[in-house]
Amino acid sequence: MTNRITGFHTADVRFPTSRHRDGSDALNPFPDYSAAYLQVETSDGDRGYGFAFTVGRGNDVQLAAIEALRPMVVGRDVEELISDLGAVSASLVGDSQLRWLGPAKGVIHMAASAVLNSLWDLKARRAGLPLWRLLAELPAAELVKAIDFRYLRDALTPAEALDILERAKDGKSERIGTLLANGFPAYTTTPGWLGYDDEKLARLSAEAKRDGFGMIKLKVGLDLDEDRRRLGIARAAVGDLPIGIDANQAWGVDEAIEWVNGLREYEPYWIEEPTSPDDILGHAAVRRAVSPIRVATGEHVHNAVMFKQLLQAQAVDVVQIDACRVGGVNENLAILLMATKFGVAVCPHAGGVGLCELVQHLSMFDYVAVSGTTEGRMVEYVDHLHEHFVDPVVIRDGRYVAPTTPGIGAQLRPESVAEHLYPSGPAWASPPVAREGFDALIGG
Amino acid sequence: MTNRITGFHTADVRFPTSRHRDGSDALNPFPDYSAAYLQVETSDGDRGYGFAFTVGRGNDVQLAAIEALRPMVVGRDVEELISDLGAVSASLVGDSQLRWLGPAKGVIHMAASAVLNSLWDLKARRAGLPLWRLLAELPAAELVKAIDFRYLRDALTPAEALDILERAKDGKSERIGTLLANGFPAYTTTPGWLGYDDEKLARLSAEAKRDGFGMIKLKVGLDLDEDRRRLGIARAAVGDLPIGIDANQAWGVDEAIEWVNGLREYEPYWIEEPTSPDDILGHAAVRRAVSPIRVATGEHVHNAVMFKQLLQAQAVDVVQIDACRVGGVNENLAILLMATKFGVAVCPHAGGVGLCELVQHLSMFDYVAVSGTTEGRMVEYVDHLHEHFVDPVVIRDGRYVAPTTPGIGAQLRPESVAEHLYPSGPAWASPPVAREGFDALIGG
Repeated sequence: MTNRITGFHTADVRFPTSRHRDGSDALNPFPDYSAAYLQVETSDGDRGYGFAFTVGRGNDVQLAAIEALRPMVVGRDVEELISDLGAVSASLVGDSQLRWLGPAKGVIHMAASAVLNSLWDLKARRAGLPLWRLLAELPAAELVKAIDFRYLRDALTPAEALDILERAKDGKSERIGTLLANGFPAYTTTPGWLGYDDEKLARLSAEAKRDGFGMIKLKVGLDLDEDRRRLGIARAAVGDLPIGIDANQAWGVDEAIEWVNGLREYEPYWIEEPTSPDDILGHAAVRRAVSPIRVATGEHVHNAVMFKQLLQAQAVDVVQIDACRVGGVNENLAILLMATKFGVAVCPHAGGVGLCELVQHLSMFDYVAVSGTTEGRMVEYVDHLHEHFVDPVVIRDGRYVAPTTPGIGAQLRPESVAEHLYPSGPAWASPPVAREGFDALIGG
Repeated sequence: MTNRITGFHTADVRFPTSRHRDGSDALNPFPDYSAAYLQVETSDGDRGYGFAFTVGRGNDVQLAAIEALRPMVVGRDVEELISDLGAVSASLVGDSQLRWLGPAKGVIHMAASAVLNSLWDLKARRAGLPLWRLLAELPAAELVKAIDFRYLRDALTPAEALDILERAKDGKSERIGTLLANGFPAYTTTPGWLGYDDEKLARLSAEAKRDGFGMIKLKVGLDLDEDRRRLGIARAAVGDLPIGIDANQAWGVDEAIEWVNGLREYEPYWIEEPTSPDDILGHAAVRRAVSPIRVATGEHVHNAVMFKQLLQAQAVDVVQIDACRVGGVNENLAILLMATKFGVAVCPHAGGVGLCELVQHLSMFDYVAVSGTTEGRMVEYVDHLHEHFVDPVVIRDGRYVAPTTPGIGAQLRPESVAEHLYPSGPAWASPPVAREGFDALIGG
């Protein structure tokens, strides 16, 4: 009998992280890290997991969008689906009615991402490989076929993509060996949340350096004097270790330029999200004005067309892909290939719930089979919520250890799902601390 | 007792337009025009109406997003809300958790639009004025205060906005008189849907010219030879009347250039949506390559930051605002002001369900109190579904008659809502014609 998708189970999973102000930044003072979680199941009993990450309110809207994609997956032949995930992507992202809700952006696009990632997870599990290795071993033509080039050809043709992948075959097995031995570089955002006091900032910064991370990152953008003070504390704690700063879209273009230049003496390695993620020309203007401080963005850049333009306009030094924001593994393949063509480093956004678990695979694949280098590359690391995953990331000497278990790493522990189901789970039995009143005060 | 928002009622209203292929284009072969409909109510018994427009599937997701905004409106003091709609906009668009779902794009932004528009409707009704007139008579400072300039200042400062509005006071009352006497220019898309046969195309094109419309518009982008043939039929039917063409995002950048230049002999007035609505640099490239054919876009341009860049990059000749896509009246104010500053004509997108009813107000306000001219300006008109509105648009001699009834025009007739409630309404009792199989065939 044909193996079909028989199960499509969603869950609203929220972690009450706002109670401790983990994850606080200029625009997210009180996030409750959440997953609009998806499990697909086949008649043979195989499973695949995916999710969209949100920061609390609206996780139910995100779930409704994933549910809207259910009819395009359930009942389908598994072999047919996972042997041509480019066609699946086209059907999800291009549905003639649902595309009005985007197109290819926001809630409906993150829903497509969750579904596509769950199918890549299914494919990797059936192959018995971690995603990074599955991707590295797929024929180049199959990878290229997974990409929608409709709006990308003026920056990257299928032939150019194929060429990049073919060239990277040189030395691939050596790089796999190196990766398995040494892991992949990481940086940490753990010390730098706005809600932490000076002692905690200094202590966590020093620990990050001692632990071997390649960079620490500090949230900035609420108060310039405060930022200078906090950067001073961090700089004293880490010496010449790179310090990235992250404004989380707090500024307009001119304000970004002035503010970042006001922090120049602390030699930030990059300024992340200086302004609206939609403002390609704005990022280009900021980059011209703050050089040699690098410009990084991407966690809110909604699709490959936007990344294409950031590259075409020379608006960024660092591309920050996100595993769940754009249309899944498929669209991230396109972004990795474009970044390589334009010679720009990819340093993924992570943290949140499970973003580290997922995105590490994409960077490892990039190193092994696309860019062929770790030069200037690091994956963000935040030490939140990993304990809830069946295959949590492992950090050793400030680097991500290459996963060897099959899949993309998105599976939550069943107990964690039950505990954090919103609003019925035990974690939500006690009401969250009163906080709405503070949002306005601190710029949220 | 304080007058508060006490009611927030939503409804999933869908019209089975796909049964007749009204509204068919290159990427929307079978739309079911729909409204995620909202009625707010005050303790004094006043009402305001708004909606987000979708094309069928996903209208439930859109409704879920509107519901997510309920707590930010219900219980609030009405005077406080409608006297500072800029603050309301900031709270809806900037909510520190919900903004992750955008920010300012897709489902969650269209939800903000529905809520803001319902409050502008409430404000206009309480003032006893149609929206265009309410806006034209508000103090310039209040209009400027309604706008979020955070990411716009590099293109338009509050002082520049104020200056544009102050300068337009000159001649305003004469223009109000002219508008009330002559209406506002319109063009029609009625003849040009892809699903119509040649006879219907020729007949409706000739009728449009006879009826006095300023332009007709044809859908293109599925087959170049077909487009040439259909443009030939339309050109023969209308003589030298302008013909716009609309690709609905069918092409990549290079393909757009080649295709449009292949239609040059029919002298199209503009090419609309030649490529992805996100591709600012792509539109600029197309514009440089197809001149003097104008480039128009906007119905899927998701916020003012994107419009800002289309103007900065000289990527468009025509800005096509949509009443429900961006963040309501507030964000459209910003776009109108930027377009005036950059000297670019605004020709709104309309059609769908109720988009004509809403957006006419914005163009009339633009003429009366912002740009001060109708030169090169037209509002799209499609003769679908107006009968379902309490205050349907009135077209006379190919022009929109200025509405005089209070509000923004978003109120559906209660019988129409009941008839078209999805999925329980009588209109959905008979299943829609089988059509999914055809989507793939014709590019959907």
